[in-house]
Amino acid sequence: MLTVFRKRHPAVGSRPGTLVVPAEAQPPRIQVIHYDRDGVDEKTAADAAEVKALLGRPGVTWIEVQGVGHEPTLRALGEVFEIHPLALEDVVNTPQRPKIEAYPKHQLIITRVLRIEGTVGLRAEQVSIFVGPDYVLSFQEHYGATLDPVKTRVHEGKGPIREAGADYLAYAILDTIVDGYYPVIEDLGEALARLEERIMARPGPKSLDRLNQIKSSLASCHRGILPQREALGHLVREGSTFVTPNVRVYLRDTLDHCAQLVDVVDTNRDLANGLVNTYLSLVGARTNEVMKVLTIMSSVFIPLTFVAGVYGMNFEIPELHWTYGYPAALAVMAACAGWMLLYFKRKGWLGEGDDRAADDRE
Amino acid sequence: MLTVFRKRHPAVGSRPGTLVVPAEAQPPRIQVIHYDRDGVDEKTAADAAEVKALLGRPGVTWIEVQGVGHEPTLRALGEVFEIHPLALEDVVNTPQRPKIEAYPKHQLIITRVLRIEGTVGLRAEQVSIFVGPDYVLSFQEHYGATLDPVKTRVHEGKGPIREAGADYLAYAILDTIVDGYYPVIEDLGEALARLEERIMARPGPKSLDRLNQIKSSLASCHRGILPQREALGHLVREGSTFVTPNVRVYLRDTLDHCAQLVDVVDTNRDLANGLVNTYLSLVGARTNEVMKVLTIMSSVFIPLTFVAGVYGMNFEIPELHWTYGYPAALAVMAACAGWMLLYFKRKGWLGEGDDRAADDRE
Amino acid sequence: MLTVFRKRHPAVGSRPGTLVVPAEAQPPRIQVIHYDRDGVDEKTAADAAEVKALLGRPGVTWIEVQGVGHEPTLRALGEVFEIHPLALEDVVNTPQRPKIEAYPKHQLIITRVLRIEGTVGLRAEQVSIFVGPDYVLSFQEHYGATLDPVKTRVHEGKGPIREAGADYLAYAILDTIVDGYYPVIEDLGEALARLEERIMARPGPKSLDRLNQIKSSLASCHRGILPQREALGHLVREGSTFVTPNVRVYLRDTLDHCAQLVDVVDTNRDLANGLVNTYLSLVGARTNEVMKVLTIMSSVFIPLTFVAGVYGMNFEIPELHWTYGYPAALAVMAACAGWMLLYFKRKGWLGEGDDRAADDRE
Amino acid sequence: MLTVFRKRHPAVGSRPGTLVVPAEAQPPRIQVIHYDRDGVDEKTAADAAEVKALLGRPGVTWIEVQGVGHEPTLRALGEVFEIHPLALEDVVNTPQRPKIEAYPKHQLIITRVLRIEGTVGLRAEQVSIFVGPDYVLSFQEHYGATLDPVKTRVHEGKGPIREAGADYLAYAILDTIVDGYYPVIEDLGEALARLEERIMARPGPKSLDRLNQIKSSLASCHRGILPQREALGHLVREGSTFVTPNVRVYLRDTLDHCAQLVDVVDTNRDLANGLVNTYLSLVGARTNEVMKVLTIMSSVFIPLTFVAGVYGMNFEIPELHWTYGYPAALAVMAACAGWMLLYFKRKGWLGEGDDRAADDRE
Amino acid sequence: MLTVFRKRHPAVGSRPGTLVVPAEAQPPRIQVIHYDRDGVDEKTAADAAEVKALLGRPGVTWIEVQGVGHEPTLRALGEVFEIHPLALEDVVNTPQRPKIEAYPKHQLIITRVLRIEGTVGLRAEQVSIFVGPDYVLSFQEHYGATLDPVKTRVHEGKGPIREAGADYLAYAILDTIVDGYYPVIEDLGEALARLEERIMARPGPKSLDRLNQIKSSLASCHRGILPQREALGHLVREGSTFVTPNVRVYLRDTLDHCAQLVDVVDTNRDLANGLVNTYLSLVGARTNEVMKVLTIMSSVFIPLTFVAGVYGMNFEIPELHWTYGYPAALAVMAACAGWMLLYFKRKGWLGEGDDRAADDRE
Repeated sequence: MLTVFRKRHPAVGSRPGTLVVPAEAQPPRIQVIHYDRDGVDEKTAADAAEVKALLGRPGVTWIEVQGVGHEPTLRALGEVFEIHPLALEDVVNTPQRPKIEAYPKHQLIITRVLRIEGTVGLRAEQVSIFVGPDYVLSFQEHYGATLDPVKTRVHEGKGPIREAGADYLAYAILDTIVDGYYPVIEDLGEALARLEERIMARPGPKSLDRLNQIKSSLASCHRGILPQREALGHLVREGSTFVTPNVRVYLRDTLDHCAQLVDVVDTNRDLANGLVNTYLSLVGARTNEVMKVLTIMSSVFIPLTFVAGVYGMNFEIPELHWTYGYPAALAVMAACAGWMLLYFKRKGWLGEGDDRAADDRE
Repeated sequence: MLTVFRKRHPAVGSRPGTLVVPAEAQPPRIQVIHYDRDGVDEKTAADAAEVKALLGRPGVTWIEVQGVGHEPTLRALGEVFEIHPLALEDVVNTPQRPKIEAYPKHQLIITRVLRIEGTVGLRAEQVSIFVGPDYVLSFQEHYGATLDPVKTRVHEGKGPIREAGADYLAYAILDTIVDGYYPVIEDLGEALARLEERIMARPGPKSLDRLNQIKSSLASCHRGILPQREALGHLVREGSTFVTPNVRVYLRDTLDHCAQLVDVVDTNRDLANGLVNTYLSLVGARTNEVMKVLTIMSSVFIPLTFVAGVYGMNFEIPELHWTYGYPAALAVMAACAGWMLLYFKRKGWLGEGDDRAADDRE
Repeated sequence: MLTVFRKRHPAVGSRPGTLVVPAEAQPPRIQVIHYDRDGVDEKTAADAAEVKALLGRPGVTWIEVQGVGHEPTLRALGEVFEIHPLALEDVVNTPQRPKIEAYPKHQLIITRVLRIEGTVGLRAEQVSIFVGPDYVLSFQEHYGATLDPVKTRVHEGKGPIREAGADYLAYAILDTIVDGYYPVIEDLGEALARLEERIMARPGPKSLDRLNQIKSSLASCHRGILPQREALGHLVREGSTFVTPNVRVYLRDTLDHCAQLVDVVDTNRDLANGLVNTYLSLVGARTNEVMKVLTIMSSVFIPLTFVAGVYGMNFEIPELHWTYGYPAALAVMAACAGWMLLYFKRKGWLGEGDDRAADDRE
Repeated sequence: MLTVFRKRHPAVGSRPGTLVVPAEAQPPRIQVIHYDRDGVDEKTAADAAEVKALLGRPGVTWIEVQGVGHEPTLRALGEVFEIHPLALEDVVNTPQRPKIEAYPKHQLIITRVLRIEGTVGLRAEQVSIFVGPDYVLSFQEHYGATLDPVKTRVHEGKGPIREAGADYLAYAILDTIVDGYYPVIEDLGEALARLEERIMARPGPKSLDRLNQIKSSLASCHRGILPQREALGHLVREGSTFVTPNVRVYLRDTLDHCAQLVDVVDTNRDLANGLVNTYLSLVGARTNEVMKVLTIMSSVFIPLTFVAGVYGMNFEIPELHWTYGYPAALAVMAACAGWMLLYFKRKGWLGEGDDRAADDRE
Repeated sequence: MLTVFRKRHPAVGSRPGTLVVPAEAQPPRIQVIHYDRDGVDEKTAADAAEVKALLGRPGVTWIEVQGVGHEPTLRALGEVFEIHPLALEDVVNTPQRPKIEAYPKHQLIITRVLRIEGTVGLRAEQVSIFVGPDYVLSFQEHYGATLDPVKTRVHEGKGPIREAGADYLAYAILDTIVDGYYPVIEDLGEALARLEERIMARPGPKSLDRLNQIKSSLASCHRGILPQREALGHLVREGSTFVTPNVRVYLRDTLDHCAQLVDVVDTNRDLANGLVNTYLSLVGARTNEVMKVLTIMSSVFIPLTFVAGVYGMNFEIPELHWTYGYPAALAVMAACAGWMLLYFKRKGWLGEGDDRAADDRE
């Protein structure tokens, strides 16, 4: 039930730059997309040598790698693009904390894609982006269509994407990823709304468990977006060799989106916390209702039973011989019960249905 | 019940600057108000071309746009005023986080108007303001009289508004919007006060639900004002090309109002949190009262019923044949009940009415 | 019950500098106190013109205004001292957030006086101080003796007050106001101590309500002192044209007092929060006690009643004809009750008085 | 029960530098300890004049004042050492917030000694230290041996103390005071551990009260150490005329101790907060247990009593005349009781002893 | 149960640099590992003199000391490496707060190794590292294999370790220690997951106690890692004489790991706090269930018993003589019971098994 991001970390004390390729990882699929103002050219590369052969042309080259499951290929790519061993480790040993780091030959952007898994669980995938002067090298953990919208935009050539440089491409990728958080958070918000209805109708421990899962997922969102916002904020303020001022305006927009996402996540977390109170209050109200029924039943019948017990005693009781003894006893009992019911009515313990109606009216 | 600000965002991966005009959006209505020291001239413009024809005169021109429901008009306006595609996106794809951004040709101020909806719900509308050297271009999401007080001031010409520049007009608009938060927060404060009375009188889960709504609305206020305060604080400290030092003094005043609003919202949030405790305590006190009634009734009558049961046994019981057996048995029972009642009285479980009176006295 | 600082704000969209003089405000009373090393001269001025006539002499002039209920007088004073319309608005449209602002002709200090109202409620009054090169202009919302201690010191001439400049006088006023927080916070602390005793003796919802009031008052203190501390800290660090370095040492002392007050308020808030827990725990303990009595009574008598019921059945029961049947039945019942009582004693549910004694001993 | 640091403050509005010598304060005892590399010379001074006569020799002079109960002596000392009136006020009007302030003639260090009072209460004493170029002037509120360890080190002459300057002596005093926090916090930690055992054994409201006291004492520690850490951090970073770089290394060590103390206090506060939860959970578990006993007893016997009641009715009931009617009725009752007990056993409500054992096993 | 880091601190007032060697401390074992590009040479040194004889060769020398139980050896080592007395005190008087400090001759890194003890307890060991120009001097509190992975890497000579300087070795040690936090935090996370299952199955006070232990251990992790992150962040930003820029890139990686660890710890703390709510909710649900059984049993049988009591009265009751009186009475009782059960069924108090199933379905 409890899902904490678990780091696939090397054995303690192994030397830095050690890559921990998990057994279930898929072998890399490499697409090389080269484009300039005039056209796009997309090829599949089998290994790093093929990639190298496709570099160096004027325009922008996007090397998209899906799957990190074959160490030699990754190391060869690392050599082609002169990637620092630690940067390569960050790409493979996922999950890393989202961050933006400057290296002499390129800018490294580590970012995280979130997807809903099951109803309210989250699955995170890391996307690592190297931004060089005329290339973008992106790594995804698994095969998937995460970056397809960007590819489509490159192919269609609408907007400034084909006229701008590698930094704009990196921005487009990052923006696509950040925009992908909106549906995730909306889904969690809707799950929260559904859960609220269910809790109002029938509060149970399972609902609280579900609520804890949503809270946990929201906290994961928060922890995923916050470092991204910080890193972006730093990049926007300080700039970088590989990001032109023109693209910084666009990154500022992505930064705004991150800030807004954090706001929405916080709003949802507040709602979730309020729902815990509602839940506890409803459970308390139910206990109260149970108690009231018990108290009313007991208070009404116990005295009556006592009266009946008195006339069941084997004493010589004068009342027993009265003509209207029996009806009189019944009348006393009825009076007694009526008095108790009146007392409870004045206390407002009867007719909780009316109570709710009054509650609704306002 | 749960209302989270939902962003009308473009499809994931669409290119930046994509405008998402919702189906229910109203077509723009454009008013062009030109004024200087000597007079005011207000016209309705049908499209961007008409607006362009009205620009360029000495004095200040205020182009007020209500409704963002027609993309070509917006794009045409964007071209007339050389608006960056991302800035135009911010205007249309609401809600954006309140912010103040510098562009080469103008300053963009994104701000949020709040209105009470229903009893304690909130409805937010975005107002976007472009401040150029001699014009102000304002966009409202929907038709409405939000900015009418400013228009009236321009027409009446009292105060410095007709003598000052476009920056003062922008300040006047912003100040009007921030002042509009006061009645909203006061309404929420009064709803809180009414709710307190109701909770003191009859605590029920519906009240807690209402309390959660108020808390949620207060949190929304907090999240609406805080970024506005930050953006204003930055503008007041750092200045801008389009804001004269003279107007910065006025903006400092608006900044003070924002800080005060945050204080009042925080005070109300504290009160709401205290009310949760009061609520839980009252529910607990009610359960306690129910329990006491049950305990007193049971403790008094169960022993009596036992005594009656004893003399209902079919043994040869000597007491049954005593002359005063029956009255004696009744006397024993009465003594027994009296002793129990005395015990409860000494414990202070009887007469909770007196208790409250004592409580009130201090 | 809920008291939030409510701002007397102008209508939304009114032009800045609009003064909102409330109907119940008192007309201003103006005292002009002029002093130098050699003597003091105190006069009452009827209007701004009289004030103007009394200015310009060597030495320090203190213009003390009590009551802000007459707009023309305030505007005339504003003209005499060249007060910015926004600054004048801050003086009249109370409450403002405490702050210190520099204007070309003077320094404006907005501060707040707190007084206990009723038992634990708070009443705030704003005092606004303009510090010029050779004058101090102070405004109080209402008539009152708040600043009399300073006047006495001026008249008595002890200490450096008559030898120092206008900035020292402003410091003396500010210090008097900050010192006035000590008795308020002590009163709240004592109310908290009394409330603790009462809650330990008899916890009831009224006590919690009172506790919430104290917490609310403490939060108001916190919100009143904190911005004062920030503003003072800024003034002490950055300095000002109208404050000599010599007086900055004194202001540092006032700053220390503010920091200490915040500490004491925080300590009291911690205590108040702890008291909520104590309260809830005591209520829970009471419910527990009620439950125990019910359980013991029921568990002891219900089996006995059952035994009596068995021998009340109209079967041919052999025991009924035994010679010692009745005493034997009673003996069985007594044994049964004894066994139950022993069981409860071993569980520690009897003799809760001893329990408490043991609790006290340690 | 509630102990808040109460400031012995002057009447509101009294002039700055006013000393408030409390009635119970002890008259000052002055020790003058002069030392250099070669020897130590300790004398008792009756008044400020005697102190003045003992100054000015090469080496370091430590004037230790215990008790602040005689204003003329303090004022005379103030004149001898050219102490600013506000600094003298800080020495006498205790408690002040710990702080470090630079004056032209010396550095003032205000610090706080904490002692356990009763079991878990705290008593604070202020120690004020003036560090001049060749002297240290220290003030303690009351007579006491707080600084004796430093005196012993001066007399024994081990370590660098006799070779270093006045700043090292001030460091030694400060370090002794900060080290004195360790036993206090350890005592509170042990009181917390003892309290935990007691709460696990028998949770009662008194324990919660005690817990609140410990939490309050821990908060006082926190508030005592934090400003000390801040002031020291500032001194270590910025330096001072009266503190040599060599001694700054030592002060960095004291700063580390402060940071560590804050950590330990925070750990204890976390534990105390966790204990509140444990307490509430245990009380809830007890109520649960009481409820279970009641429910089991009632559920078992109420049906039986009903059956007995049926056969106690005076109808012509055929079963009454069966040969084995009575044993059959008893058998039915036993079966009924057995079935109920089986039901409760399957629910796990019986044998809570086993439950705990299972709990312990893991 | 409560385990707070307890400082082995010197007597209050002892002179700085006093070493407190605990009685149970083990005498130091010293390994001297010298290496360069060409080879490794590991020797055991008996005392500081032997160590001194092994220094001064080109290449890097790592002096690894395990156990701090012999003061003369430590003091002698301190003299050989010119360690400041306060730095030596930091090495011996453990635990110190993790920190990084610059001394003229070397950089001191104080760090903390955490190990799981028992199930969820933590044991901390301090490792102190001095980084000189061509040597690393490391101290461990106890004998142990903590640093063996680094030794292995030096011996194997893979990666850059043998070609880099002393700073890289220090990084390798630090990285090994920080990596050692991952399994600890994962163990705590798994203990939390196991505990959650147990609480869902059978909530008891022992579980809450265990939960508090885990929370306490997580807080210890947080307090162990946070100062390490701060100190590393400072070192990475500001640099140091003894750390080359090349190694700073590696330290930035370790810094990322620290930031990630803090994230994971925070996630686990959130989960633990959510579990407290779940626990309390489950306990409340159980009480509710107990109450329901009691209420149903009482409400069904008490009225029946009353009816039976009525016909057990010794009045002349006409019904007693009816032919079908007895069956009619039984029928009335059955109807009565059936009506009550129907009422409870409609309230949803029966068949809580179905309820859960419904809960699971969604």
